Amino acid sequence: MDLKQKIRSIPDFPKAGILFRDITTLLSDAAGFTYVVDQLTRRYQDRAVDVVAGIESRGFIIGGAIAYQLKKGFVPIRKPGKLPAEKLSVSYSLEYGTDRVEMHTDAIARGARVLLVDDLLATGGTMKAACELVEKAGGEVVECAFIIHLADLPGEQLLKKYSVFSLISYD
Amino acid sequence: MDLKQKIRSIPDFPKAGILFRDITTLLSDAAGFTYVVDQLTRRYQDRAVDVVAGIESRGFIIGGAIAYQLKKGFVPIRKPGKLPAEKLSVSYSLEYGTDRVEMHTDAIARGARVLLVDDLLATGGTMKAACELVEKAGGEVVECAFIIHLADLPGEQLLKKYSVFSLISYD
Repeated sequence: MDLKQKIRSIPDFPKAGILFRDITTLLSDAAGFTYVVDQLTRRYQDRAVDVVAGIESRGFIIGGAIAYQLKKGFVPIRKPGKLPAEKLSVSYSLEYGTDRVEMHTDAIARGARVLLVDDLLATGGTMKAACELVEKAGGEVVECAFIIHLADLPGEQLLKKYSVFSLISYD
Repeated sequence: MDLKQKIRSIPDFPKAGILFRDITTLLSDAAGFTYVVDQLTRRYQDRAVDVVAGIESRGFIIGGAIAYQLKKGFVPIRKPGKLPAEKLSVSYSLEYGTDRVEMHTDAIARGARVLLVDDLLATGGTMKAACELVEKAGGEVVECAFIIHLADLPGEQLLKKYSVFSLISYD
């Protein structure tokens, strides 16, 4: 399936000069959404994965579906201030300033093999922080899975310690 | 399955006097997460549903899994400023001030039968605004589905125009 045909490209969002890859047109297409989840699920169904962690917010949509298909639990990695119980936190750099992701301290067991899911790999900052959260909790990153990889950005380099997979790539 | 045993209750979050029902402990439990998605999917698999819409953010986790299981597309209903293309918007009242939800104008076809999903029904303000978004786009609400209903709050009353279903209820 040609996923790129189902993805909409929007110039100058969220700011001038950015060509935004909008997956909502892919997700709302039943065949497209099913294909994405099937492809990612197949990749992991014979591998040792204990739990799937999705990154807020678009990573929740496909991460939840993949966790269900793999018959595993789902762990949300969230923006600051959203999680109600004791949590771990990792900061990362943005172009201007910093941001932070959080995960409940008891979200994964020590030694758990965690599949991380997000929709798009750009600079990789959020995913790297998510990997560090998993490691802080004593877990092991199986792979970082994405629908889209923006290959002109340094995300793969930033994540070089980890295994990275994406269904499609834009140069 | 006794879902309440898998849900954690946290006093005074996000503010004093609120007993927060934390579903992350349910979602991270493989059997619990599978059960929730299975129960909701079964309810809709023989009904005419064209698309599943989930409300940001926790509605994305179960909404995505349900859409996949039903072999339907998924539409995100998001907080303001997140969606990149032309969108519809509905405001609703909070205890102090107002908030807003948004959906892409082309997210659903006219006449589409839409299943709306969120994790928890409290005051119902967000879900009512989401129903109005669907209707603005020319769609029809099949049902509003939740894991949890907080029965001491007026959510069901606010949503009385719509069919509402939840897996469990707290008095």
